[in-house]
Amino acid sequence: MLCNEATRLLQVQYPIIQAPMAGGVTTAKLVAAVSNAGGLGSIGAGYLHAAQTRELIREVRQLTRNPFSVNLFVPNEFHAEEEEAAAAAQLLQPICEKLGILYDMPQRPDIEAVRAVFDEQVQVVIDEKVPICSFTFGIPSNEIIAKLKRHNVLLIGTATTVAEAAAVEQAGLDLVVLQGSEAGGHRGNFISEFPESIIGLMSLIPQTVDRVGIPVIAAGGIMDGRGLLAALCLGAKGVQMGTAFLTCEESGAPAVYKAALLSASEEETVFTRTFSGKWARGIQNTFMKEMQKHEGAVPAFPIQNALTQPIRKAAASQQNPAFMSLWSGQSPRLAKRQSAEALIRSMAAEAEGIVRSMGVSCRRSI
Amino acid sequence: MLCNEATRLLQVQYPIIQAPMAGGVTTAKLVAAVSNAGGLGSIGAGYLHAAQTRELIREVRQLTRNPFSVNLFVPNEFHAEEEEAAAAAQLLQPICEKLGILYDMPQRPDIEAVRAVFDEQVQVVIDEKVPICSFTFGIPSNEIIAKLKRHNVLLIGTATTVAEAAAVEQAGLDLVVLQGSEAGGHRGNFISEFPESIIGLMSLIPQTVDRVGIPVIAAGGIMDGRGLLAALCLGAKGVQMGTAFLTCEESGAPAVYKAALLSASEEETVFTRTFSGKWARGIQNTFMKEMQKHEGAVPAFPIQNALTQPIRKAAASQQNPAFMSLWSGQSPRLAKRQSAEALIRSMAAEAEGIVRSMGVSCRRSI
Repeated sequence: MLCNEATRLLQVQYPIIQAPMAGGVTTAKLVAAVSNAGGLGSIGAGYLHAAQTRELIREVRQLTRNPFSVNLFVPNEFHAEEEEAAAAAQLLQPICEKLGILYDMPQRPDIEAVRAVFDEQVQVVIDEKVPICSFTFGIPSNEIIAKLKRHNVLLIGTATTVAEAAAVEQAGLDLVVLQGSEAGGHRGNFISEFPESIIGLMSLIPQTVDRVGIPVIAAGGIMDGRGLLAALCLGAKGVQMGTAFLTCEESGAPAVYKAALLSASEEETVFTRTFSGKWARGIQNTFMKEMQKHEGAVPAFPIQNALTQPIRKAAASQQNPAFMSLWSGQSPRLAKRQSAEALIRSMAAEAEGIVRSMGVSCRRSI
Repeated sequence: MLCNEATRLLQVQYPIIQAPMAGGVTTAKLVAAVSNAGGLGSIGAGYLHAAQTRELIREVRQLTRNPFSVNLFVPNEFHAEEEEAAAAAQLLQPICEKLGILYDMPQRPDIEAVRAVFDEQVQVVIDEKVPICSFTFGIPSNEIIAKLKRHNVLLIGTATTVAEAAAVEQAGLDLVVLQGSEAGGHRGNFISEFPESIIGLMSLIPQTVDRVGIPVIAAGGIMDGRGLLAALCLGAKGVQMGTAFLTCEESGAPAVYKAALLSASEEETVFTRTFSGKWARGIQNTFMKEMQKHEGAVPAFPIQNALTQPIRKAAASQQNPAFMSLWSGQSPRLAKRQSAEALIRSMAAEAEGIVRSMGVSCRRSI
């Protein structure tokens, strides 16, 4: 029942993908544990340089012989004016005082440098013979798609609306991850706007599968066998989960972040763009509350992301969740401390159990 | 497979409730057609007086012998200051000019009058022996709950978060409708705030059923057998659908409203409080765009609702959807022109078909 086009394409036992969370969370240990358990582990390479990406791929290879994927951020156009960045840095001063740190102005990101890193990462994926490459924040160029395909790399896009999923298919990618409104972390919208692109999976999955032919992977709020089965009923061929893996033993999330997830309710996660310049869902904390009044004023991604980096780093080293980015989907009540393998196995068993019980009552009612 | 605690309590064949849409949409014909087809029809009596409620109940009784429900709006405290209402009416002048109407200031709602109507409606439900009564915008008083229960009326509450569902159960109601972020029309939140209470069903259902013991009915974006089955997999015992019934032949929605639903995409529905003073999801039109800048300034429900009534009425009589409230959930692409019976039958057949096909591949894979 859990074998379908997606598991065949991805060459995995279960249609369960660990979301490629950037920023140190997706350790080699987590990625390998997921792939070893029959799911698809994913390296979140969005903030890595080419050499770091290569190193992490090799670490994962040491720990698993099963397929895994590398996720890259498609570079978006941005203009980093010095004055704008300086003004935005000024808004962070009260936060720095609360944290007791001196703010050290980071280097401004440069679009040409970002593009160069992306191209190098694509080459690393090819050189290291990574079987699957996924993309967030857009669709790569036709040249890059063609190049990866020539090297037999399976390609996964990310979409938040029917139109975006259709664009991913049109570009020739092999699968599409559909990010529902429930999802934690950064929004992947690249054609559609916020908040119009904030669509619940109950609506987004069926409307999308009616339109696109490539397998759809559902992401957002899915944490157990109930969510997996519901996504399949709606027409998805698999699920991608972030929050559920964040609290796993193998995840690299700081202990205070895991603790925050394990005690949060569904009402505590809201959208902000004050951490990075892109809209993202996280557990509301002091940083988000203090910065809310500047929501419209902060510069675009990745400029704001670079500007808040010293704060997030200091907060992490102080183990202070009040100023960290606590990305979370809308189902934190379902988070558990467990191994990645236990999560995957229990999901498959739960989904199959529900189908069996429905099948029984189905036959009885005939 | 579709028989469970909810169908036993509601005494219906299918766990499918037609959402009680107020404002003339839930005609006696629609309510009766749903109940005759084995679902639960619901009268949306929120804006009706007691005599109108009684009349509609009697009309439905002429058309069906099956159970149906009446939905009432629990009165919320509000203060209608004359100056505030006059200022808010002023904001509507540019709209009136576009519509070519002279604005006739309506009578200001009075909280005591609203409460009196509600109490009379409760008495009508009892007198007319309506078997099921549902509530939106809060939980009625203990006295009213006790009174209805003494007369064996089954009670349904509406919740948007786990905390609200727990409060509905605590108050002694028999079932709870869970309104997901996908849902069209007015938000039913009464403890939780906007936007914190905007939770996708993929997250909301499992987290709620882990907490409350009464049967949960899922509402929001569900339009077909895929959505019905997904909701059941997540732990709901049934679904409530509004948009799916709006385009049915028996619905009282104006033709231009039905046409707007049948051509809308999932990105076109957004939240506004400019129509009524309460947040609600609808297809974005000229009224919503023009009024967006006043989002924070309009008075609370039901004051703003009364103030915009002349506009909505004129727009409806001009068949001009640009100034009507076009409430819709996030799945308008799934809307069809069909009979209520065809909708219900096809949903049940589709859900059972999916379970059968999953059961087959389940047995094969063992």
